[in-house]
Order: sequence, then structure tokens, then C-alpha cells
Amino acid sequence: MAQKKLGNQTVKFQNPPSIVATGSIVGPKEGEGPLKDYFDLIIQDDLWGEDSWEKCESKLQKEAVNLALSNAKIVSSQVDYLFAGDLLNQIIASSFSARSLQIPFFGLYGACSTMTESLSLGAMAIDGGFADNVVCVASSHFSTAERQYRFPLELGNQRPLTSQWTVTGAGASVLSSRGGGPYITHITTGKVIDPGIKDANNMGPAMAPAAADVIVQHFKDTGFKPSDYDLIITGDLASIGKEISEELMMKEGYNVSNVYSDCGIEIFDDKKQDTHAGGSGCGCSAVVFNGYIYKQLQKNKLKRVMLVSTGALLSPTSTQQGESIPGIAHAVTISNTLS
Amino acid sequence: MAQKKLGNQTVKFQNPPSIVATGSIVGPKEGEGPLKDYFDLIIQDDLWGEDSWEKCESKLQKEAVNLALSNAKIVSSQVDYLFAGDLLNQIIASSFSARSLQIPFFGLYGACSTMTESLSLGAMAIDGGFADNVVCVASSHFSTAERQYRFPLELGNQRPLTSQWTVTGAGASVLSSRGGGPYITHITTGKVIDPGIKDANNMGPAMAPAAADVIVQHFKDTGFKPSDYDLIITGDLASIGKEISEELMMKEGYNVSNVYSDCGIEIFDDKKQDTHAGGSGCGCSAVVFNGYIYKQLQKNKLKRVMLVSTGALLSPTSTQQGESIPGIAHAVTISNTLS
Repeated sequence: MAQKKLGNQTVKFQNPPSIVATGSIVGPKEGEGPLKDYFDLIIQDDLWGEDSWEKCESKLQKEAVNLALSNAKIVSSQVDYLFAGDLLNQIIASSFSARSLQIPFFGLYGACSTMTESLSLGAMAIDGGFADNVVCVASSHFSTAERQYRFPLELGNQRPLTSQWTVTGAGASVLSSRGGGPYITHITTGKVIDPGIKDANNMGPAMAPAAADVIVQHFKDTGFKPSDYDLIITGDLASIGKEISEELMMKEGYNVSNVYSDCGIEIFDDKKQDTHAGGSGCGCSAVVFNGYIYKQLQKNKLKRVMLVSTGALLSPTSTQQGESIPGIAHAVTISNTLS
Repeated sequence: MAQKKLGNQTVKFQNPPSIVATGSIVGPKEGEGPLKDYFDLIIQDDLWGEDSWEKCESKLQKEAVNLALSNAKIVSSQVDYLFAGDLLNQIIASSFSARSLQIPFFGLYGACSTMTESLSLGAMAIDGGFADNVVCVASSHFSTAERQYRFPLELGNQRPLTSQWTVTGAGASVLSSRGGGPYITHITTGKVIDPGIKDANNMGPAMAPAAADVIVQHFKDTGFKPSDYDLIITGDLASIGKEISEELMMKEGYNVSNVYSDCGIEIFDDKKQDTHAGGSGCGCSAVVFNGYIYKQLQKNKLKRVMLVSTGALLSPTSTQQGESIPGIAHAVTISNTLS
């Protein structure tokens, strides 16, 4: 078996990379939510001086990277690789941001699992000896996602109660071979799992089995128990998906209820903000991790966290052609200590 | 500097992975071209028993992987990671193929640079000690690409002479920590470079500067000269882009003319097949490499090859919003010897 492989799907790093700094920028609605004090920047409208929502999303991503680099006290020429993705067709938010940043670029598409996909590959690049510094980033934008995946916003379509609210925001992590933590110690890479759901307005249940599967696999591969974590947090299962995922893990003998939450639940206050099932989008786990969780780790209020970004692998075309919505999720362990 | 880093953008592997097997499947038009004898399978129509072109593309990708696994005499459960991408919105060809394959999955979007993006990340995963076997795959399909990027085929739009013909096909490589070559010895990862071209029917020139830049960077980082290679082959610059790229390299002092070709030129016979500037699409360099070039390496007719898949990072939305078309390219050195 490969030298650093643990069980079937997990890597244990030998020289765990440190997340030396992060950057997070959110839109106005996220800036009114419960985590508002943790973001580096809250933009005041959803265009941020650009002439399209798509260009705004690209700017969010570029500026989140610039903030992270500035917080890490390095410049872009010191970064070996940029691992970036978003939800737009042909990931244009990432490509156009990479055009400005001029860092060797690996474009990713993992739907809303992108933040942990990028952290996984970025951590491999550093532990493998291929890079000193990498940047991992993901973004989404409510208005670009709605018109691409669902309906023109001008139509004023009613949103069913199972629907989620795509987060406007971008979050970036700078990973380095130097630094004193928080460390990425393990990654568990998910398979595509399809529970057969076809409703693009009900994506939590479509992703829940993939999330449960990768978390259970992580426990099996590593021997960790739920109580070894201060927090296990999925990406954007939101209220309905989280409940299903928790039940599925329970059936496998893992009770995570004491430490389990979901970024899509944390980012909005549904009672006040009318977001229905909760938040979603690549940007959801990206800003909750790079804003809130990272700062809790730095303060040692959290010591070991499993971040599990979750993606629904649909396109409008696949849905129109009668396909169901498969899910994927990748788990990343971030810990203040190496023991 | 990182242990395995050479210059600014290149990695030299310490334990170079072997490409132990490949699989390639093409459509009927590619199956009538000059390389027809090198592909594992030629499908007889562009649906291959599926009810949509998109489902056909996903099947192409899945079956190319299955062929590569079968040629490598391993099964999917022995594969640590699948690195896959395509041109479709939300890379559905890859996601739905990964659903069948049940291999831990990293989805990539690098436009037509995907084959070398996946080989780069796959080689890192193996050399880094994270995997014993990985599969790298890319696909495209003429009919899915035309209706997504340009016009419905039913419209019968005239194609300008600068336009390229998207290859229908998928190519997959199995990389392993064991095996006696051909080896992936070096990778040079590209930056996004934008010459400001806005015509989606003229993508060769949009990608040419990125290709020239990464090849020149490879020479600078490694100290290799053009004559150290039997073949340097770009992805899909086709006739117009290849000429520009060659000129740009010449200006930097590198004359590659003796060893330089382009997969988009090799795959079709323009005089007989009316493909205009040449082939394009993720599948183009994927099938030319995994079909033709790999077999030439096995026969030792080629000893050291630089494959440089080239991507145009546009979407219909970015074009409609007035954006130009940035390019990207990644270089991978494949060699029969480790000296």
C-alpha cells in the first residue's frame, strides 16, 4: 500500500502542512447572519462595482486570495500552486481570478465540495515536497447560481421550503510547509454516491449519503471516534440533509450528534433571514471554514475539526435529461496539534 | 525551495510514476482519420446506444477507463484516485462516469488542458506516496460541445475557416508506483495567459501564448533543449495556433521546429475531412496521447515526449459579457528512461 495511505480512502500526512492564513469575503446577506463578525470583508451590494454578478464573483475570489496572501505576509510569486473552483459553467470565476493572480493554476470542479477538494490536493502538493506554499480557494454567488441552475431572478419564482440559499462569498486558505499549525493532518477522499433524488430544489438529501459515507470511511480508516473531534462540520447539507446524514451514520454505529454541525445551518439565521433549509454553494463551507472555524482554531476554542464540504453533481442539462443528482464529499482533518 | 521543485514552475519527480496502460475510444470521424489504427475502440455513431450525446460522452469516459484498467490488469478497487474532467457544464461526463466507477474522485476543469492537468496531479499523488495506482482521464464530444459553446447543430451554422472540430473521444492513463515506464519524469504547470482574443471560433491563437510560455518555462526550469525531445506536442492549437506558438518560442530563443507538432493537426486529415484549422477538445490530446503517442513510446519509436495540453478558458457567459479568452497549458514529460 502507498506509504502515506491509511485504509481505503484516507491519507495521513507525514509532514502536515500548516494553514498559515485565510481570507474570507461575503455578500450583504451573509454579512447580516450569525457569523458576521468573523469575515474579513462584507461587500455592500452583490455587484461590488462590477457590471455583472459573474465578474463580481471572480473579484470575490481574487480578493479573498489577496487577503489570505496579505494575512500570510507573502506575495503571489511565492505561491507554487493555486487550487481553485466555483459553480459557474467552465469555472469562469476561478479562471478569470487566476488570470489576475498569475500563480500556476489547477482548476477544480467538485460542485460545493470544492473547498475540501482544493485543501486535499493542496495539502498533497506540500506534503509531497512539490510546493512550499499553495492557495486553496472556492467561491459562489447567489445571483450567478440562481440564474444558471434555476430561474432568472427577475421571474420572482417561489422557492420551496426544501430549497437552500446559495452563499455569496469566497474563502481562501494559504497552506505552507512551514508554520506552527493549524495542521492538515488527514484527508479522506469521497466517491460519487447517488441516492436517486431528482429535485434540484432539494439537494441536502442528494448529498447526505456521500457525506455520511466519507465520514464513516474516515473513522474506519483512521480509528478516530466522533469524540476525537471538537467539531465535525459538513458543507451545505442544511437542515434536511444534516438530519439524514446523522441518521445514516448512526446506522453504521457512529453517533456524531454531540459534535456535528453543518456550514449551511451556521451561516444564516433561518428564522430572521428566510433562507428555508439553509445555505449552500462552494462559498458556504469556504467562508464558514476560512472565516469562523479557522479563527476558533487559532484561539484554541476548537482543537481538532473535520471539515466535510459536500457537492451535488448536477447540471441543468443532466436534470433535463432525466438524470438523478449524485453527491460527493471530501473530509479534511484540521488540528492544532500533531499528536 | 520545495524539495522536488525545479525553477519556478517545474517538478522533477524522485520516484517517477509509470504509465502502465492506457485506453482510448473515439467517434466515427476520428476513426476515419490518420491515427485510426492506434485507438482501442471506434464507435459507429455519436450516441453509442445512449439517448443523448452527453450520456454518450460519459459512457466514452467510463469505458476508456475500463479499457485502461483492463489493459493494466487491475480492477477499479485497486485504484486510489480518479482525476477526471471534460468540457461540459459542471463536468457531468466525468461525474456520471465516476458514479459508475466508484473510485475516490477529484473533478477537474482545465478546458482542453485537462489531460495534462490530470496527469500532473496524478503523478504528484503517486510520487508523493499517497497512491499506488491512479487513473487520469479526459473526454470531449463534438455534438455536446457545439450545442453548449456555439449553436444548435440543427441550425446548420457555417463554420469559419479558423474554427476547429471538437474531437469525440476519451483517453485514460493508468499511473502506477510500480512498472518499468514510460515514466512521467517532470511536470511544468501553467499560468493563465490572456492575449485578448474574443472570437470563440478562433481559439488556437487564444491558447498559443500559454503553450509557448509553459514550454519555454520548462526549458528554463530544467535546462532541457528542444533537441532533448523526440516530440513536443501541444494539445489543440491546430494549424493557426501552432504557427503562432512556434514563433513565440523562437522569439525566446527556442527553435522547436524539428520536433514540434500539435494533436489537433495529427488527428484529422483536413484536406479529406474538412475540419478547417484542426481538432480540439479535451478529448483531442487525450486520445492522441493515450492512443498514438503511448504506443510509439512502448515501441521505443519515441523515447522522450513533452505533452502540452492547451485550454481556452471561456464560457458562453464570459464571451457574452465581453470578456476575452484566456489560455492555459500544462507540460508533462514522458520518457522511456530515467536518465
